[in-house]
Amino acid sequence: MEKRILGLDPGLATLGFGAILCHPGGNTADAVSIVDFGIIQTTANQEIGDRLCVIYDDLHSLLNYIQPDLVAIEKLFFYRMGNTIAVAQARGVIMLVLAQYKVPFVEFTPAQVKQALTGHGNADKHDVQQAVARELKLDRIPRPDDAADALALGLAAWFQS
Amino acid sequence: MEKRILGLDPGLATLGFGAILCHPGGNTADAVSIVDFGIIQTTANQEIGDRLCVIYDDLHSLLNYIQPDLVAIEKLFFYRMGNTIAVAQARGVIMLVLAQYKVPFVEFTPAQVKQALTGHGNADKHDVQQAVARELKLDRIPRPDDAADALALGLAAWFQS
Repeated sequence: MEKRILGLDPGLATLGFGAILCHPGGNTADAVSIVDFGIIQTTANQEIGDRLCVIYDDLHSLLNYIQPDLVAIEKLFFYRMGNTIAVAQARGVIMLVLAQYKVPFVEFTPAQVKQALTGHGNADKHDVQQAVARELKLDRIPRPDDAADALALGLAAWFQS
Repeated sequence: MEKRILGLDPGLATLGFGAILCHPGGNTADAVSIVDFGIIQTTANQEIGDRLCVIYDDLHSLLNYIQPDLVAIEKLFFYRMGNTIAVAQARGVIMLVLAQYKVPFVEFTPAQVKQALTGHGNADKHDVQQAVARELKLDRIPRPDDAADALALGLAAWFQS
């Protein structure tokens, strides 16, 4: 059965999303195709609560549009020191919406995504983005980076499924 | 005009709340009274998303019940290393609900609360709790600690208003 996987790269200012459609039959050339990708944005001159409301409302709309069977989301660590609390607060709203929508999710660290897409846990950003473009037969690397990262998360979930 | 202030001590397992009613006329003996206090709890054997749903639903119910004019919430820092991300995710859901409810909020650090209630930014927990009981004319210190902390946040907001 076909499966829609939605990758989400959490953030307060920019939440990247990338949706793929995975066809049954494994590793044939047409086994995966792109549905859509992009970002949900909030601006720094908005109140924090209003920014979280934008994420809440837009993510509900996105889930209604994509109708994913599975969500792949980046696991959060302390290394993003500067804005860990802001990103974690946004991620809390994302996890709430996923639970309200009752869609299952899997979590990946950045190293796990790199490993899944390039075979190397310490691959650089560009290698991962090129792997995304290659797997999805895109002429160019998806922009912005947050959307490419989200597609990489979706592909990582597909590879392990 | 009377003012209802709701203090919130954010957490994923335990969210403390404490509501006070502040009467006009400043520092008279009856200037402040207690409305209610307690905790919203989630359990570790629930999925993270389900726990955030409990916080979302229960906090909406609490706001409908208390009808606060102002919310006082603890500011989050990195010192709570072990569970900062979990608390921040819960706090994101709290900030979302406050914005959906359109209730204004003020933030305090623990040191600011201690300073406001005891005159000392490095007062210990028990001194703060005794100040809460004294200000609210309670026979004993409110339990659990998270509820007492939430009442202290509410009083700090009242003192500065």
